[in-house]
Amino acid sequence: MGSVSPNVAELDGSNFNVTRSTNLRDVPLPGSPEEMSHSYCTDHMVTVRWTVANGWETPEVKPYQNLSIPPTASVLHYATECFEGMKVYRGYDGKLRLFRPDCNGERLNNSSQRSSLPGFKYDELKKLVAKLMQVDGPRWLPKERPGSYLYIRPSVIGNGPHLGVQVPKEALLFIIAVPWPDFTKMKKEGETEPKKGLKLFASTPDSVRAWPGGFGSAKLGANYGPSLQAHGKAQAQGFDQILWLFGEDRQVTEAGASNFFIIWHNADTGRLELVTAPLENQLILPGVTRRSVLELVRDRLSKQSVGSLQPLQVSERTLTISEIEKAAKEGRIVESFVSGTAYFITPVAMIRNNDTDISTLGKNGEPAGYAALIKSWLEAIMFGKEEHEWAYVVENEEK
Amino acid sequence: MGSVSPNVAELDGSNFNVTRSTNLRDVPLPGSPEEMSHSYCTDHMVTVRWTVANGWETPEVKPYQNLSIPPTASVLHYATECFEGMKVYRGYDGKLRLFRPDCNGERLNNSSQRSSLPGFKYDELKKLVAKLMQVDGPRWLPKERPGSYLYIRPSVIGNGPHLGVQVPKEALLFIIAVPWPDFTKMKKEGETEPKKGLKLFASTPDSVRAWPGGFGSAKLGANYGPSLQAHGKAQAQGFDQILWLFGEDRQVTEAGASNFFIIWHNADTGRLELVTAPLENQLILPGVTRRSVLELVRDRLSKQSVGSLQPLQVSERTLTISEIEKAAKEGRIVESFVSGTAYFITPVAMIRNNDTDISTLGKNGEPAGYAALIKSWLEAIMFGKEEHEWAYVVENEEK
Repeated sequence: MGSVSPNVAELDGSNFNVTRSTNLRDVPLPGSPEEMSHSYCTDHMVTVRWTVANGWETPEVKPYQNLSIPPTASVLHYATECFEGMKVYRGYDGKLRLFRPDCNGERLNNSSQRSSLPGFKYDELKKLVAKLMQVDGPRWLPKERPGSYLYIRPSVIGNGPHLGVQVPKEALLFIIAVPWPDFTKMKKEGETEPKKGLKLFASTPDSVRAWPGGFGSAKLGANYGPSLQAHGKAQAQGFDQILWLFGEDRQVTEAGASNFFIIWHNADTGRLELVTAPLENQLILPGVTRRSVLELVRDRLSKQSVGSLQPLQVSERTLTISEIEKAAKEGRIVESFVSGTAYFITPVAMIRNNDTDISTLGKNGEPAGYAALIKSWLEAIMFGKEEHEWAYVVENEEK
Repeated sequence: MGSVSPNVAELDGSNFNVTRSTNLRDVPLPGSPEEMSHSYCTDHMVTVRWTVANGWETPEVKPYQNLSIPPTASVLHYATECFEGMKVYRGYDGKLRLFRPDCNGERLNNSSQRSSLPGFKYDELKKLVAKLMQVDGPRWLPKERPGSYLYIRPSVIGNGPHLGVQVPKEALLFIIAVPWPDFTKMKKEGETEPKKGLKLFASTPDSVRAWPGGFGSAKLGANYGPSLQAHGKAQAQGFDQILWLFGEDRQVTEAGASNFFIIWHNADTGRLELVTAPLENQLILPGVTRRSVLELVRDRLSKQSVGSLQPLQVSERTLTISEIEKAAKEGRIVESFVSGTAYFITPVAMIRNNDTDISTLGKNGEPAGYAALIKSWLEAIMFGKEEHEWAYVVENEEK
């Protein structure tokens, strides 16, 4: 049931059956309708079949195409599905890089088993992604456009016929790559300039994303579909994401598809503090970007200043919306931002909680610059300006 | 967002495009591997496309076939999916009947909107099912086999390309029909005779199916996939289903894919009482069979005896596992059963809660006969032995 058995084949990302597309698609321009669709994929995809009897079959690279799925498939009825979000970056040195891909591999392995789908050796995932990028990287992320990236979506689904409610006996791991707009540069209709930050709508008690003993810390489809109702309502009112609160004390957990951070002067000590929700209660997704932010700040910004930015004390702990409201009233908020693969590092301008609008920008209505600094550190690693163990170089791109 | 808009076409089950299968499949025998697969469908299926721009398109009846789904489809990543379980019954008078199909239509409409999928006029669903049965009923439920049935699975999925987390702009409603084994007659490997009742495994606090403000009362895929892990573990230990408990007081909510009922002598009054969990807190699925059981017992068995069976007081209220354990110790349990479309009315023999096995059969180790009586009432309606407004006759079967 999901775990790796010695009797069946393990996932092996070193051997492929390759079928090349003979009908290459136009690569969309940044900002084009194709890119804005978030769904215009590259020329190829990776698929790997799994059966309970034989385990993982040989991975295939093949032309991007629709999946043929039986109407009785488990994934269509019982949400036996999970995914990852990653990016591949074209560096300023011309190389392609993945960012901490083993973190995504490990999480996908966990999510898959949480969905009663098969587990796998997590460090194989990056090889599958690298193979896809060896084929599609040269055309879709040309060396002449350093600083660009593609969004990578690995998924595992229960695609076998299993209309009876049961643990899936067949599964499919597939990976697609998609040109992705830069959210930080996007303007909404009617806006004349890029805004200072996201507008978040705090969830109300009648709408709960995750709960203790549930599955909020796994990247399952089941965390997303039921949350779209609240998300859609918030978007219709001009908000970007839901800020999910939990419990009677209205704990701040995560923001839609990303983790939430706030930098403020601590109410008790007055010290500058970076706060984000903890992982212990398993309500939030353990983001790879979240983890990287925490590690970089602990390493580079907790003991010394950087330029005019003072050191930050890092706190992973429960925080409530009333703490944030109080900090805003008292002028203690310095900056806040969300982190994630899709939204990367994006400042948050305000939070609406019930009828109260809370500004989460700094005193002068601007971010203090911490988010921009952290973002620049991450980009340096992603785009090869800084050699770092978190970057995984995709070797052997095809001509 | 899901609701019916006046500018787009509504679902219309009175007009179809029909494509007939030219390659009819063998109808499986009861107990055959095909039937036991729960996934061997009839010759045709119904599909209805929906787009945000145009609403519901003309329903199609076409040969059963795999669905062609883009790898970027919302349903494969974000679990934008919901379903219904229904049956069609071949009556002893030769007619085909559905059981309270508008209840399923209403619930599917609710579930679909809860998933940010489109709503529809709920009473159209039965017409779609009836059309499928006009075509496939004569071969798959022959008049020579009265008392037989097919399982009907209507589903709505977000099948459009929507890799960005957003409310789906395309959807597909599809309906398939499947020969379904009779759980009440099934034997497990190693068992020599049909057992006296199901064995339920009470969930532990680290595994929680639903939460107030969540979506436990809607029939979403998201309620099933994440629960398969606990289900699979329980099955591996010889149990049939999980009995989902909730909260610090360990409230009994529902049993896997069905609602749970217990009949006992009330601890305070000594009166015979039928108890099941309430709908108010939205933790459990509002089962059509559940509702029918409650209505029949209130109508036929709450004021007068039937044969040797004494009248029952009907209570929809919170009950806890410790109340059940106490009742068992004190010899007050008369009978218990689950209800649902898949499991119909099936006695429960025991519940394992932590290390305690609780017998939920009556004093002499047998069910008292209430479940059997209620089942016979429902079957009389389903199979046309009793004319009743809950039965919906499928007219105009094809030759």
